[in-house]
Amino acid sequence: MILAEKGHKVDLLDCDIHGTTIPTLLGLETERIGNSPKGLTPVQATSNLKVLSMGFLIQNKDNPVIWRGPMKMSAIKQLLGNFNWGPLDYLIIDLPPGTGDEPLSIAQIIPKITGSIIVTTPQDVALISVRKSINFVKKLNIPIVGIKENMSGFACPYCGKQVNIFKIGGGKKVADDFNLNFLGAIPLDPKIVEIGDTGTITIDKDSRISHAFKTIVANAEKFIKSTKNL
Amino acid sequence: MILAEKGHKVDLLDCDIHGTTIPTLLGLETERIGNSPKGLTPVQATSNLKVLSMGFLIQNKDNPVIWRGPMKMSAIKQLLGNFNWGPLDYLIIDLPPGTGDEPLSIAQIIPKITGSIIVTTPQDVALISVRKSINFVKKLNIPIVGIKENMSGFACPYCGKQVNIFKIGGGKKVADDFNLNFLGAIPLDPKIVEIGDTGTITIDKDSRISHAFKTIVANAEKFIKSTKNL
Repeated sequence: MILAEKGHKVDLLDCDIHGTTIPTLLGLETERIGNSPKGLTPVQATSNLKVLSMGFLIQNKDNPVIWRGPMKMSAIKQLLGNFNWGPLDYLIIDLPPGTGDEPLSIAQIIPKITGSIIVTTPQDVALISVRKSINFVKKLNIPIVGIKENMSGFACPYCGKQVNIFKIGGGKKVADDFNLNFLGAIPLDPKIVEIGDTGTITIDKDSRISHAFKTIVANAEKFIKSTKNL
Repeated sequence: MILAEKGHKVDLLDCDIHGTTIPTLLGLETERIGNSPKGLTPVQATSNLKVLSMGFLIQNKDNPVIWRGPMKMSAIKQLLGNFNWGPLDYLIIDLPPGTGDEPLSIAQIIPKITGSIIVTTPQDVALISVRKSINFVKKLNIPIVGIKENMSGFACPYCGKQVNIFKIGGGKKVADDFNLNFLGAIPLDPKIVEIGDTGTITIDKDSRISHAFKTIVANAEKFIKSTKNL
């Protein structure tokens, strides 16, 4: 969203086949894919942001997508190949956690991926999976843009005291361990849950949340631009 | 753990192939599977609790398991078939989120599953996936023991005020919508993160967390006993 607000043409592909939450997060639940003379078209979320998700193709949103790996591979191929994405600056692909069919399919279908952003929460148990994800992406020779930490600390809105429910700083630590960029942290905040549940696309530009996201986008852009100049 | 403390013989199978966190959560990270004349043996966590996880089979815990669906199906078959589980009262299978290869494999391999427990967090975005999971389990004709709500509300440890970061009550609401049992809720609590990260198996029996877990276990047992008498 921040990339799109900055004037870039951004396409977002929701590859979490079993848990397509992006239509809800962006307030697009009732939208369906379009049809143009040049092919099927993703959903236009804002003037610069197009979105594609299995959620737009399922009739009843309570219906599960009961697919094994090969079916998912085939669906991802179609999502990427059969749609008229139009000109774009960034294609952002959202993947479920783990090192299985969805990320493997993307790595196989797209020959030259600019980079991956690895998202974690700060506690040790989450970092176990993140260390595996870093090694997974390295094995596939995909550059790593950096690590982003979610649920990073919590400030009580009543007394202002800091309560680090899921700890804080684990993402930075793992980035340092692997000599990777740390892109930034998003604190636990009921407002983020509210924004997601109500599908609010635009947030107050001067809020703490907005600044946290902007820092992450700026750090990611800096890395991407530096690799393009190589 | 609570079932095992109550005198039941419990085996726990970690079927989250890509994100095997159970060895860490139970303080068993350095354990490896055993070998007996009757076959390979799971890790004995306590006198009544045996655990099996891909984590016990991987040499370097930072190495990802880069497997597509068919490999996962085959691994799950082996975990269930080639191990000498010994006599047991309960086999608990922990599955990753989603409606893909892992739960499908379990449903195919085990002919008569006693029941499934569906875990959610309270916010609307999580409930979308849970509604899909409920319909998935129904399509596979697996009984539903009930719904459990994690990250349910938060009480600031400094000022005592309630801050429902991920909201509260979504699990109960979805249980009512589908006419299912609501088993209980586990509040957000930094102590739970700490217990997990340090692999603490036993927790203070009089604590709020312990009571919350005991309620859920009691409700689940009640349901299971009622179906066995049918």
